[in-house]
Amino acid sequence: MTIEFPPVEPPNEVTRHRAVTRHAALTKPVGSLGRLEELGAWVAACQGECPPRPFTRPRVVVFAGDHGVARHGVSAYPSEVTGQMVANFLAGGAAVNVLANVAGATVRVVDVAVDSDTAVGDLKVRRSSGSIDREDALTDEEARRAVEVGRKLADDEVDGGADLLIAGDMGIGNTTPSAVLIAALTGSEPVAVVGRGTGIDDRGWMRKTAAIRDALRRARPVINNPLALLRVAAGADIAAMAGFLAQAAVRKTPVILDGVVSGAAAVVAEELAPGAREWWVAGHRSAEPAHALALNHLGLEPLLEFDMRLGEGSGAVAALPLVVMAARVLAEMATFESAGVSGRD
Amino acid sequence: MTIEFPPVEPPNEVTRHRAVTRHAALTKPVGSLGRLEELGAWVAACQGECPPRPFTRPRVVVFAGDHGVARHGVSAYPSEVTGQMVANFLAGGAAVNVLANVAGATVRVVDVAVDSDTAVGDLKVRRSSGSIDREDALTDEEARRAVEVGRKLADDEVDGGADLLIAGDMGIGNTTPSAVLIAALTGSEPVAVVGRGTGIDDRGWMRKTAAIRDALRRARPVINNPLALLRVAAGADIAAMAGFLAQAAVRKTPVILDGVVSGAAAVVAEELAPGAREWWVAGHRSAEPAHALALNHLGLEPLLEFDMRLGEGSGAVAALPLVVMAARVLAEMATFESAGVSGRD
Repeated sequence: MTIEFPPVEPPNEVTRHRAVTRHAALTKPVGSLGRLEELGAWVAACQGECPPRPFTRPRVVVFAGDHGVARHGVSAYPSEVTGQMVANFLAGGAAVNVLANVAGATVRVVDVAVDSDTAVGDLKVRRSSGSIDREDALTDEEARRAVEVGRKLADDEVDGGADLLIAGDMGIGNTTPSAVLIAALTGSEPVAVVGRGTGIDDRGWMRKTAAIRDALRRARPVINNPLALLRVAAGADIAAMAGFLAQAAVRKTPVILDGVVSGAAAVVAEELAPGAREWWVAGHRSAEPAHALALNHLGLEPLLEFDMRLGEGSGAVAALPLVVMAARVLAEMATFESAGVSGRD
Repeated sequence: MTIEFPPVEPPNEVTRHRAVTRHAALTKPVGSLGRLEELGAWVAACQGECPPRPFTRPRVVVFAGDHGVARHGVSAYPSEVTGQMVANFLAGGAAVNVLANVAGATVRVVDVAVDSDTAVGDLKVRRSSGSIDREDALTDEEARRAVEVGRKLADDEVDGGADLLIAGDMGIGNTTPSAVLIAALTGSEPVAVVGRGTGIDDRGWMRKTAAIRDALRRARPVINNPLALLRVAAGADIAAMAGFLAQAAVRKTPVILDGVVSGAAAVVAEELAPGAREWWVAGHRSAEPAHALALNHLGLEPLLEFDMRLGEGSGAVAALPLVVMAARVLAEMATFESAGVSGRD
């Protein structure tokens, strides 16, 4: 069994070059906007248009799911929180809702594997997952279906007009499979990837490290088969997120990555659809140690370093205004010629 | 001759503590929004209100002025650009205009010392400044008047409803006096503070380093007298910016600092009105080496590291959405209780 994504085309290099040339004509010293200039050129290259169009529909999709391993003391919170937080997203009370309101994005939450009934379960793949320290997270069929759910979500959003995508996560226990996926694909040891997640104590940290070690032993034999890796060590929410990130790239839509869960889905998505990472920027570097390994593996430099570790897409949405500004500056600033400003001596 | 600012009261510590307590009740693990939580608590402490009010009038004031030292080959651009850029700000074509549009701020440009006639010269202190490598930048009277202009601008803006202030700069040659002021007050050597500014070549870099060395020799005897230091080594635009930043603190109004010029004005403002720095956050760390020294001296950690080096307030405005988000999250997120979400196990 396999799953095939069409080849990913890179962002348009000719347009990127035109953006660099345009930046040199704008009323500022060449390169003086630093990272904002690179970001603007990336947006133009993704759109294949220079000057780039302003974003009209930045969209956050939150992938909610529970994780069987959470039964074994790897999180500070009980699994029931996942379903409660889905209701909180729908009511607009979560951090990502508030951040998205400021940044001009809208939020959709999808129940992929919550261990209770929710109002947004029409794409649900299953409830929770197997406890990855001792059994597969998913069946072959569930893993495939989860990736397809993510792919379909990306298609739906792009077809609905989304011009920038963010994948958020919600799921008690989800940093454990994320750490395993990142360790497996970056060749890292359990102690290098384990983090405090929502805030476990020292005994929880020991349990989590042991769970990651055991799951990693199960995952290592399948690291060359991304779908099998998702079956063994992910969960339907993370598998769906991987399908979503891969398909966003297939659909030539820029993505801002969030934290460690989105980073784990991204390293798998890059295996599913090589080259997809060219369509992503890293919104931030989180406090989770595995996240830095994932970003390094993908060759991505984060926009923010705010020690955030919430998930939900929050770190990506916090960075969204910077991407919006980068595009708008490139499109809207005056040129030396139009403004009648002298050039260099 | 001296200039007196009233004592600066610190932001409200009781309110800051209430903000930290409130953050612990919001639907997210404690501390999981990292730097955004600290920023939100700072905004609440500045306002003396928790939850903090949303910002309604973030305001950028750009201080424009020419610098006599620019006649001696320390910049890549001719001085006429300063006046041309003032017109560009008024037409809305500069980087800071575009960034402010996205961030929800408005921009005012004030000609404090431009070496040509502009449409915004009603507070002008003089044209340009003395070449600080060989003569004082200003007379005693001009230095005092410039600080008063900045103080009046802060008062006008706060009285007009501004609830967050950003000081931007525009002036060919202005990184040279900025480097001198920072070197003088941080005890640094010329080679540690000299930077490429708008993009000088190696020969320009040597001329600039020599100018900084000579001006620093003139400035060191007066480092204990901030007004004399402004007279010797600043320029009316930077002196006005120092008065503005000091008075913003007196008026208990939060400020986002920009790059090296705003950093130089800030280190002097902290001398004029000790404790003012509690009312400031650093929007970014610029590519100019003196800027890092200034931030370190003030004990400020930048929000962004984007290798920006444009000035105009651009780096501060780029960071503005983060400050807005920090306040909104603290004010608008649901609590565990209101959302019916379970707490920690």
